[in-house]
Amino acid sequence: MRNDKVVIPLRALALRGALWSPVRIKTSELGSTMGMSQQGASQVLKRLERAGYIERWKGAGGSLIHITPKGRDLLLEFYHTLKMLFAKGGEVRLKGRVVRGMGEGRYYLSLKPYSEAIKKLTETEVYPGTLNIALDGLSAIKFRALSSFPGMEIMPFKAEGRSFGGAKLFRARIGDEQVHVIIPQRTHYQDVVEVISEKSLREALDLSDGSVVEVVVEVNIPGIGDRD
Amino acid sequence: MRNDKVVIPLRALALRGALWSPVRIKTSELGSTMGMSQQGASQVLKRLERAGYIERWKGAGGSLIHITPKGRDLLLEFYHTLKMLFAKGGEVRLKGRVVRGMGEGRYYLSLKPYSEAIKKLTETEVYPGTLNIALDGLSAIKFRALSSFPGMEIMPFKAEGRSFGGAKLFRARIGDEQVHVIIPQRTHYQDVVEVISEKSLREALDLSDGSVVEVVVEVNIPGIGDRD
Repeated sequence: MRNDKVVIPLRALALRGALWSPVRIKTSELGSTMGMSQQGASQVLKRLERAGYIERWKGAGGSLIHITPKGRDLLLEFYHTLKMLFAKGGEVRLKGRVVRGMGEGRYYLSLKPYSEAIKKLTETEVYPGTLNIALDGLSAIKFRALSSFPGMEIMPFKAEGRSFGGAKLFRARIGDEQVHVIIPQRTHYQDVVEVISEKSLREALDLSDGSVVEVVVEVNIPGIGDRD
Repeated sequence: MRNDKVVIPLRALALRGALWSPVRIKTSELGSTMGMSQQGASQVLKRLERAGYIERWKGAGGSLIHITPKGRDLLLEFYHTLKMLFAKGGEVRLKGRVVRGMGEGRYYLSLKPYSEAIKKLTETEVYPGTLNIALDGLSAIKFRALSSFPGMEIMPFKAEGRSFGGAKLFRARIGDEQVHVIIPQRTHYQDVVEVISEKSLREALDLSDGSVVEVVVEVNIPGIGDRD
Protein backbone atom coordinates (compact mmCIF):
# COMPACT_ATOMS: atom_id res chain seq x y z
CA MET A 1 0.00 0.00 0.00
CA ARG A 2 1.34 3.38 -0.94
CA ASN A 3 1.99 5.90 1.78
CA ASP A 4 -0.59 8.40 0.54
CA LYS A 5 -3.27 5.77 0.89
CA VAL A 6 -2.28 5.18 4.49
CA VAL A 7 -1.21 8.43 6.12
CA ILE A 8 -4.35 10.45 5.37
CA PRO A 9 -6.90 7.87 6.53
CA LEU A 10 -4.80 7.01 9.58
CA ARG A 11 -4.70 10.67 10.52
CA ALA A 12 -8.48 10.92 10.09
CA LEU A 13 -8.91 7.90 12.38
CA ALA A 14 -6.42 9.30 14.88
CA LEU A 15 -8.44 12.53 15.00
CA ARG A 16 -11.43 10.44 16.08
CA GLY A 17 -9.36 8.99 18.93
CA ALA A 18 -8.41 5.66 17.36
CA LEU A 19 -4.74 6.01 18.34
CA TRP A 20 -5.53 5.48 22.00
CA SER A 21 -8.43 3.06 22.20
CA PRO A 22 -10.98 1.32 19.98
CA VAL A 23 -13.55 3.89 18.85
CA ARG A 24 -16.86 3.76 17.04
CA ILE A 25 -16.42 5.38 13.66
CA LYS A 26 -19.06 5.79 10.96
CA THR A 27 -17.70 5.20 7.47
CA SER A 28 -20.00 7.91 6.12
CA GLU A 29 -18.48 10.46 8.49
CA LEU A 30 -14.95 9.23 7.86
CA GLY A 31 -15.59 9.43 4.13
CA SER A 32 -16.77 13.01 4.34
CA THR A 33 -13.70 14.16 6.28
CA MET A 34 -11.52 12.57 3.59
CA GLY A 35 -13.60 13.86 0.69
CA MET A 36 -14.78 10.44 -0.45
CA SER A 37 -17.94 8.33 -0.46
CA GLN A 38 -18.96 5.91 2.28
CA GLN A 39 -18.06 3.04 -0.06
CA GLY A 40 -14.67 4.62 -0.68
CA ALA A 41 -14.02 4.97 3.04
CA SER A 42 -15.11 1.39 3.59
CA GLN A 43 -12.63 0.18 0.96
CA VAL A 44 -9.88 2.18 2.59
CA LEU A 45 -10.60 0.61 5.99
CA LYS A 46 -10.48 -2.88 4.49
CA ARG A 47 -7.11 -2.14 2.98
CA LEU A 48 -5.76 -0.61 6.17
CA GLU A 49 -6.88 -3.67 8.12
CA ARG A 50 -5.36 -6.10 5.63
CA ALA A 51 -2.06 -4.22 5.76
CA GLY A 52 -2.04 -4.37 9.56
CA TYR A 53 -2.43 -0.65 10.27
CA ILE A 54 -5.75 -0.98 12.09
CA GLU A 55 -7.82 -3.55 13.97
CA ARG A 56 -11.58 -3.73 13.50
CA TRP A 57 -14.37 -5.38 15.46
CA LYS A 58 -17.79 -5.61 13.91
CA GLY A 59 -20.95 -5.39 16.00
CA ALA A 60 -24.64 -5.05 15.32
CA GLY A 61 -24.47 -1.28 15.85
CA GLY A 62 -21.37 -0.64 13.71
CA SER A 63 -17.68 -1.32 14.09
CA LEU A 64 -14.94 -0.30 16.45
CA ILE A 65 -11.56 0.66 15.08
CA HIS A 66 -8.16 0.87 16.74
CA ILE A 67 -4.88 1.92 15.16
CA THR A 68 -2.20 -0.76 15.67
CA PRO A 69 1.37 0.00 16.81
CA LYS A 70 2.42 -0.43 13.16
CA GLY A 71 -0.08 2.24 12.16
CA ARG A 72 0.96 4.54 14.99
CA ASP A 73 4.62 4.18 14.05
CA LEU A 74 3.88 5.14 10.47
CA LEU A 75 2.12 8.33 11.54
CA LEU A 76 4.89 9.05 14.01
CA GLU A 77 7.52 8.60 11.31
CA PHE A 78 5.61 10.99 9.08
CA TYR A 79 5.44 13.46 11.94
CA HIS A 80 9.19 13.28 12.54
CA THR A 81 9.96 13.81 8.87
CA LEU A 82 7.89 16.99 8.87
CA LYS A 83 9.47 18.08 12.14
CA MET A 84 12.95 17.71 10.68
CA LEU A 85 11.86 19.53 7.52
CA PHE A 86 10.52 22.50 9.42
CA ALA A 87 13.55 22.59 11.68
CA LYS A 88 15.38 23.17 8.36
CA GLY A 89 17.50 20.13 8.79
CA GLY A 90 19.63 20.28 11.86
CA GLU A 91 20.39 17.24 13.92
CA VAL A 92 18.72 13.98 14.82
CA ARG A 93 19.77 12.22 18.01
CA LEU A 94 19.55 8.44 17.86
CA LYS A 95 20.05 6.36 20.98
CA GLY A 96 20.68 2.64 21.23
CA ARG A 97 22.97 -0.16 22.26
CA VAL A 98 26.01 -1.57 20.52
CA VAL A 99 25.31 -4.96 18.95
CA ARG A 100 27.45 -7.42 17.03
CA GLY A 101 26.70 -7.40 13.29
CA MET A 102 26.85 -10.43 11.05
CA GLY A 103 30.02 -9.31 9.33
CA GLU A 104 27.99 -7.86 6.47
CA GLY A 105 29.21 -4.33 6.96
CA ARG A 106 32.79 -5.55 6.86
CA TYR A 107 32.07 -7.52 3.68
CA TYR A 108 30.55 -4.53 1.90
CA LEU A 109 33.35 -2.24 2.96
CA SER A 110 35.80 -4.72 1.48
CA LEU A 111 34.28 -4.27 -1.98
CA LYS A 112 36.27 -1.76 -4.00
CA PRO A 113 33.44 0.20 -5.65
CA TYR A 114 31.91 0.68 -2.23
CA SER A 115 35.04 1.57 -0.31
CA GLU A 116 36.22 3.94 -3.03
CA ALA A 117 32.91 5.76 -3.17
CA ILE A 118 32.96 6.10 0.60
CA LYS A 119 36.53 7.33 0.59
CA LYS A 120 35.65 9.97 -1.98
CA LEU A 121 32.55 11.16 -0.11
CA THR A 122 33.97 11.13 3.40
CA GLU A 123 37.48 12.22 2.39
CA THR A 124 38.90 9.69 4.81
CA GLU A 125 40.27 6.18 4.79
CA VAL A 126 37.54 4.14 6.45
CA TYR A 127 38.19 1.44 9.03
CA PRO A 128 37.04 -1.86 7.52
CA GLY A 129 34.10 -2.59 9.80
CA THR A 130 30.87 -0.99 10.94
CA LEU A 131 29.70 -0.21 14.44
CA ASN A 132 26.13 -1.46 14.72
CA ILE A 133 23.71 0.19 17.11
CA ALA A 134 20.29 -1.31 17.85
CA LEU A 135 18.01 1.69 18.33
CA ASP A 136 15.41 2.14 21.03
CA GLY A 137 11.72 2.67 20.11
CA LEU A 138 11.52 6.37 19.31
CA SER A 139 15.03 6.48 17.84
CA ALA A 140 14.08 3.70 15.43
CA ILE A 141 11.21 5.83 14.18
CA LYS A 142 13.39 8.92 13.86
CA PHE A 143 15.89 6.78 11.94
CA ARG A 144 13.19 5.70 9.49
CA ALA A 145 12.20 9.34 9.06
CA LEU A 146 15.88 10.20 8.45
CA SER A 147 16.00 7.56 5.71
CA SER A 148 13.61 9.70 3.63
CA PHE A 149 16.07 12.59 3.54
CA PRO A 150 18.65 12.90 0.79
CA GLY A 151 22.15 11.96 1.86
CA MET A 152 25.46 11.61 0.06
CA GLU A 153 24.71 9.01 -2.60
CA ILE A 154 26.62 5.83 -3.28
CA MET A 155 25.48 4.38 -6.59
CA PRO A 156 24.50 0.74 -7.12
CA PHE A 157 27.24 -1.35 -8.74
CA LYS A 158 28.17 -4.84 -9.92
CA ALA A 159 31.04 -6.82 -8.43
CA GLU A 160 31.99 -10.47 -8.20
CA GLY A 161 29.15 -11.28 -10.59
CA ARG A 162 26.53 -9.84 -8.21
CA SER A 163 24.64 -6.58 -8.25
CA PHE A 164 24.83 -4.41 -5.15
CA GLY A 165 22.36 -1.74 -4.11
CA GLY A 166 23.47 1.80 -3.43
CA ALA A 167 23.53 3.52 -0.08
CA LYS A 168 23.28 6.92 1.53
CA LEU A 169 25.79 8.50 3.88
CA PHE A 170 25.07 11.10 6.55
CA ARG A 171 27.66 13.03 8.53
CA ALA A 172 27.35 12.28 12.24
CA ARG A 173 29.22 12.22 15.52
CA ILE A 174 29.46 10.02 18.57
CA GLY A 175 30.84 12.06 21.44
CA ASP A 176 33.76 13.93 19.86
CA GLU A 177 34.36 11.40 17.09
CA GLN A 178 33.41 12.42 13.56
CA VAL A 179 31.65 9.46 11.97
CA HIS A 180 29.24 8.67 9.14
CA VAL A 181 25.98 6.78 9.23
CA ILE A 182 25.49 4.54 6.25
CA ILE A 183 22.02 3.46 5.12
CA PRO A 184 21.99 0.73 2.50
CA GLN A 185 19.21 1.02 -0.08
CA ARG A 186 18.31 -2.59 0.44
CA THR A 187 18.40 -2.97 4.15
CA HIS A 188 17.45 -5.95 6.27
CA TYR A 189 17.14 -4.27 9.58
CA GLN A 190 15.26 -1.04 10.03
CA ASP A 191 16.17 -0.57 13.64
CA VAL A 192 19.94 -0.92 13.48
CA VAL A 193 22.07 2.00 12.45
CA GLU A 194 25.49 1.27 10.94
CA VAL A 195 28.28 3.69 11.65
CA ILE A 196 31.60 4.00 9.89
CA SER A 197 34.68 5.98 10.80
CA GLU A 198 38.39 6.11 10.13
CA LYS A 199 39.00 4.35 13.43
CA SER A 200 37.73 1.27 15.15
CA LEU A 201 35.03 2.95 17.22
CA ARG A 202 34.87 0.06 19.66
CA GLU A 203 38.48 0.80 20.53
CA ALA A 204 38.43 4.58 20.26
CA LEU A 205 35.32 4.94 22.42
CA ASP A 206 35.88 1.87 24.57
CA LEU A 207 32.59 0.28 23.56
CA SER A 208 31.46 -3.29 23.88
CA ASP A 209 28.23 -5.16 23.17
CA GLY A 210 25.41 -3.53 25.09
CA SER A 211 27.13 -0.15 25.56
CA VAL A 212 24.65 2.72 25.30
CA VAL A 213 25.56 5.14 22.52
CA GLU A 214 24.08 8.33 21.13
CA VAL A 215 24.68 9.12 17.48
CA VAL A 216 24.01 12.71 16.45
CA VAL A 217 23.24 12.76 12.74
CA GLU A 218 23.32 15.87 10.56
CA VAL A 219 20.26 16.22 8.37
CA ASN A 220 20.93 18.10 5.19
CA ILE A 221 18.27 19.53 3.01
CA PRO A 222 19.34 20.70 -0.43
CA GLY A 223 19.06 24.45 -0.66
CA ILE A 224 19.82 24.93 3.04
CA GLY A 225 23.39 25.59 4.07
CA ASP A 226 25.77 23.86 1.70
CA ARG A 227 24.05 23.42 -1.62
CA ASP A 228 24.52 20.67 -4.12
CA MET B 1 -7.85 18.47 -4.74
CA ARG B 2 -8.08 16.04 -1.88
CA ASN B 3 -5.55 16.29 0.90
CA ASP B 4 -4.07 12.86 0.26
CA LYS B 5 -3.16 13.92 -3.25
CA VAL B 6 -1.34 16.96 -1.92
CA VAL B 7 0.40 16.14 1.34
CA ILE B 8 2.41 13.16 0.16
CA PRO B 9 3.82 14.72 -3.03
CA LEU B 10 4.49 18.01 -1.23
CA ARG B 11 6.44 16.14 1.42
CA ALA B 12 8.41 14.32 -1.28
CA LEU B 13 9.25 17.68 -2.91
CA ALA B 14 10.11 19.21 0.46
CA LEU B 15 12.55 16.35 1.08
CA ARG B 16 14.34 17.37 -2.12
CA GLY B 17 14.66 20.90 -0.78
CA ALA B 18 11.75 22.54 -2.63
CA LEU B 19 10.47 24.26 0.52
CA TRP B 20 13.40 26.65 0.59
CA SER B 21 14.35 27.37 -3.00
CA PRO B 22 13.61 26.23 -6.55
CA VAL B 23 15.23 22.82 -7.06
CA ARG B 24 15.79 20.56 -10.02
CA ILE B 25 13.66 17.46 -9.59
CA LYS B 26 13.39 14.54 -11.98
CA THR B 27 9.85 13.22 -12.31
CA SER B 28 11.17 9.68 -12.61
CA GLU B 29 12.95 9.99 -9.26
CA LEU B 30 9.98 11.71 -7.64
CA GLY B 31 7.70 8.97 -8.96
CA SER B 32 9.85 6.23 -7.51
CA THR B 33 9.90 7.79 -4.03
CA MET B 34 6.10 7.96 -4.17
CA GLY B 35 5.64 4.50 -5.64
CA MET B 36 4.28 5.68 -8.98
CA SER B 37 5.35 5.97 -12.60
CA GLN B 38 7.06 8.99 -14.15
CA GLN B 39 3.77 9.78 -15.94
CA GLY B 40 1.93 9.54 -12.63
CA ALA B 41 4.39 11.91 -10.95
CA SER B 42 4.12 14.30 -13.87
CA GLN B 43 0.31 14.36 -13.55
CA VAL B 44 0.62 15.03 -9.84
CA LEU B 45 2.95 17.98 -10.45
CA LYS B 46 0.53 19.46 -12.98
CA ARG B 47 -2.29 19.25 -10.47
CA LEU B 48 -0.18 20.72 -7.66
CA GLU B 49 0.78 23.61 -9.91
CA ARG B 50 -2.80 24.27 -11.01
CA ALA B 51 -3.95 24.26 -7.38
CA GLY B 52 -1.26 26.78 -6.43
CA TYR B 53 0.84 24.54 -4.18
CA ILE B 54 3.98 24.70 -6.32
CA GLU B 55 5.62 26.89 -8.94
CA ARG B 56 7.40 25.37 -11.91
CA TRP B 57 9.86 26.68 -14.45
CA LYS B 58 10.65 24.60 -17.51
CA GLY B 59 14.06 24.62 -19.10
CA ALA B 60 15.85 22.62 -21.73
CA GLY B 61 17.49 20.44 -19.11
CA GLY B 62 14.36 19.79 -17.01
CA SER B 63 12.26 21.83 -14.65
CA LEU B 64 12.76 23.63 -11.38
CA ILE B 65 10.14 23.35 -8.67
CA HIS B 66 9.45 25.52 -5.65
CA ILE B 67 6.76 24.98 -3.02
CA THR B 68 4.58 28.12 -2.63
CA PRO B 69 3.60 29.62 0.75
CA LYS B 70 0.18 27.97 0.27
CA GLY B 71 1.86 24.60 -0.12
CA ARG B 72 4.16 25.20 2.83
CA ASP B 73 1.21 26.18 5.03
CA LEU B 74 -0.62 22.98 4.13
CA LEU B 75 2.36 20.84 5.16
CA LEU B 76 2.79 22.93 8.29
CA GLU B 77 -0.87 22.47 9.19
CA PHE B 78 -0.52 18.73 8.71
CA TYR B 79 2.56 18.80 10.93
CA HIS B 80 0.74 20.67 13.68
CA THR B 81 -2.20 18.25 13.61
CA LEU B 82 0.17 15.33 14.12
CA LYS B 83 2.04 17.23 16.82
CA MET B 84 -1.19 17.81 18.74
CA LEU B 85 -2.19 14.18 18.25
CA PHE B 86 1.05 12.87 19.66
CA ALA B 87 0.96 15.34 22.51
CA LYS B 88 -2.31 13.48 23.32
CA GLY B 89 -4.35 16.62 23.04
CA GLY B 90 -3.33 19.23 25.52
CA GLU B 91 -3.40 22.90 24.68
CA VAL B 92 -2.95 25.09 21.65
CA ARG B 93 -1.89 28.69 22.13
CA LEU B 94 -3.25 31.10 19.56
CA LYS B 95 -2.03 34.69 19.43
CA GLY B 96 -3.57 37.60 17.61
CA ARG B 97 -5.18 41.00 17.76
CA VAL B 98 -8.72 41.95 18.60
CA VAL B 99 -10.68 43.03 15.53
CA ARG B 100 -14.21 44.23 15.00
CA GLY B 101 -16.49 41.59 13.47
CA MET B 102 -19.28 42.24 11.01
CA GLY B 103 -21.98 41.56 13.56
CA GLU B 104 -22.33 38.03 12.24
CA GLY B 105 -21.42 36.38 15.52
CA ARG B 106 -24.04 38.44 17.32
CA TYR B 107 -26.62 37.51 14.68
CA TYR B 108 -25.95 33.79 14.99
CA LEU B 109 -25.98 33.89 18.77
CA SER B 110 -29.42 35.54 18.57
CA LEU B 111 -30.86 32.46 16.84
CA LYS B 112 -32.57 30.21 19.32
CA PRO B 113 -31.39 26.79 18.07
CA TYR B 114 -27.83 28.09 18.18
CA SER B 115 -27.98 29.84 21.55
CA GLU B 116 -29.76 26.91 23.18
CA ALA B 117 -27.27 24.38 21.88
CA ILE B 118 -24.44 26.58 23.15
CA LYS B 119 -26.10 27.02 26.52
CA LYS B 120 -26.46 23.26 26.87
CA LEU B 121 -22.86 22.54 25.87
CA THR B 122 -21.17 25.30 27.82
CA GLU B 123 -23.54 25.17 30.80
CA THR B 124 -23.55 28.96 30.91
CA GLU B 125 -25.66 31.83 29.66
CA VAL B 126 -23.62 33.30 26.82
CA TYR B 127 -23.08 37.01 26.26
CA PRO B 128 -24.70 37.89 22.93
CA GLY B 129 -21.60 38.77 20.94
CA THR B 130 -18.30 37.24 19.91
CA LEU B 131 -14.80 38.50 20.50
CA ASN B 132 -12.96 38.23 17.20
CA ILE B 133 -9.21 37.75 17.13
CA ALA B 134 -7.22 38.00 13.89
CA LEU B 135 -4.45 35.45 14.27
CA ASP B 136 -0.81 35.91 13.39
CA GLY B 137 0.88 33.61 10.82
CA LEU B 138 1.75 30.53 12.81
CA SER B 139 -1.33 30.78 15.02
CA ALA B 140 -3.53 30.82 11.92
CA ILE B 141 -1.97 27.54 10.86
CA LYS B 142 -2.36 26.01 14.30
CA PHE B 143 -5.98 27.15 14.25
CA ARG B 144 -6.57 25.37 10.95
CA ALA B 145 -5.01 22.24 12.43
CA LEU B 146 -7.28 22.59 15.47
CA SER B 147 -10.29 22.69 13.14
CA SER B 148 -9.62 19.05 12.23
CA PHE B 149 -10.09 17.93 15.82
CA PRO B 150 -13.46 16.88 17.15
CA GLY B 151 -15.08 19.48 19.39
CA MET B 152 -18.45 19.76 21.07
CA GLU B 153 -20.88 19.57 18.17
CA ILE B 154 -23.66 22.00 17.35
CA MET B 155 -25.88 20.46 14.71
CA PRO B 156 -27.04 22.25 11.53
CA PHE B 157 -30.57 23.63 11.76
CA LYS B 158 -33.23 25.61 9.91
CA ALA B 159 -34.56 28.95 11.11
CA GLU B 160 -36.26 31.95 9.51
CA GLY B 161 -36.61 29.93 6.31
CA ARG B 162 -32.82 29.52 5.97
CA SER B 163 -30.58 26.57 6.69
CA PHE B 164 -27.64 27.15 9.03
CA GLY B 165 -24.49 25.08 9.21
CA GLY B 166 -23.39 23.51 12.45
CA ALA B 167 -20.35 24.50 14.49
CA LYS B 168 -17.80 23.12 16.91
CA LEU B 169 -17.00 24.44 20.36
CA PHE B 170 -13.70 24.10 22.20
CA ARG B 171 -13.09 24.99 25.82
CA ALA B 172 -10.49 27.73 26.13
CA ARG B 173 -9.22 30.51 28.32
CA ILE B 174 -7.96 34.06 27.94
CA GLY B 175 -5.96 34.99 31.00
CA ASP B 176 -8.11 33.76 33.88
CA GLU B 177 -11.39 33.94 31.96
CA GLN B 178 -13.03 30.66 30.97
CA VAL B 179 -14.22 31.04 27.39
CA HIS B 180 -15.15 28.91 24.38
CA VAL B 181 -13.86 29.07 20.85
CA ILE B 182 -16.55 28.54 18.25
CA ILE B 183 -15.72 27.30 14.76
CA PRO B 184 -18.61 27.49 12.29
CA GLN B 185 -18.74 24.66 9.76
CA ARG B 186 -19.15 27.15 6.96
CA THR B 187 -16.65 29.77 7.78
CA HIS B 188 -15.64 32.80 5.78
CA TYR B 189 -12.47 33.68 7.53
CA GLN B 190 -9.86 31.07 8.29
CA ASP B 191 -7.59 33.34 10.24
CA VAL B 192 -10.03 34.86 12.70
CA VAL B 193 -10.97 32.97 15.83
CA GLU B 194 -14.33 33.75 17.43
CA VAL B 195 -14.56 33.54 21.19
CA ILE B 196 -17.70 33.42 23.33
CA SER B 197 -18.11 33.76 27.06
CA GLU B 198 -20.73 34.60 29.65
CA LYS B 199 -19.32 38.11 29.87
CA SER B 200 -18.45 40.85 27.46
CA LEU B 201 -14.77 40.04 27.12
CA ARG B 202 -13.95 43.50 25.83
CA GLU B 203 -15.16 44.87 29.16
CA ALA B 204 -13.95 42.09 31.43
CA LEU B 205 -10.44 42.09 30.00
CA ASP B 206 -10.33 45.76 29.03
CA LEU B 207 -9.71 45.02 25.37
CA SER B 208 -10.10 47.23 22.36
CA ASP B 209 -9.41 46.90 18.66
CA GLY B 210 -5.78 45.99 18.17
CA SER B 211 -5.22 44.60 21.67
CA VAL B 212 -2.93 41.57 21.61
CA VAL B 213 -4.58 38.48 23.07
CA GLU B 214 -3.57 34.89 23.64
CA VAL B 215 -6.28 32.25 23.60
CA VAL B 216 -5.33 28.91 25.12
CA VAL B 217 -7.56 26.24 23.58
CA GLU B 218 -8.05 22.75 25.05
CA VAL B 219 -7.71 20.02 22.47
CA ASN B 220 -9.69 16.95 23.34
CA ILE B 221 -9.20 13.63 21.70
CA PRO B 222 -11.89 11.04 22.32
CA GLY B 223 -10.50 8.21 24.40
CA ILE B 224 -8.06 10.49 26.26
CA GLY B 225 -9.15 11.94 29.57
CA ASP B 226 -12.89 12.51 29.58
CA ARG B 227 -14.43 10.09 27.14
CA ASP B 228 -17.54 10.51 25.10
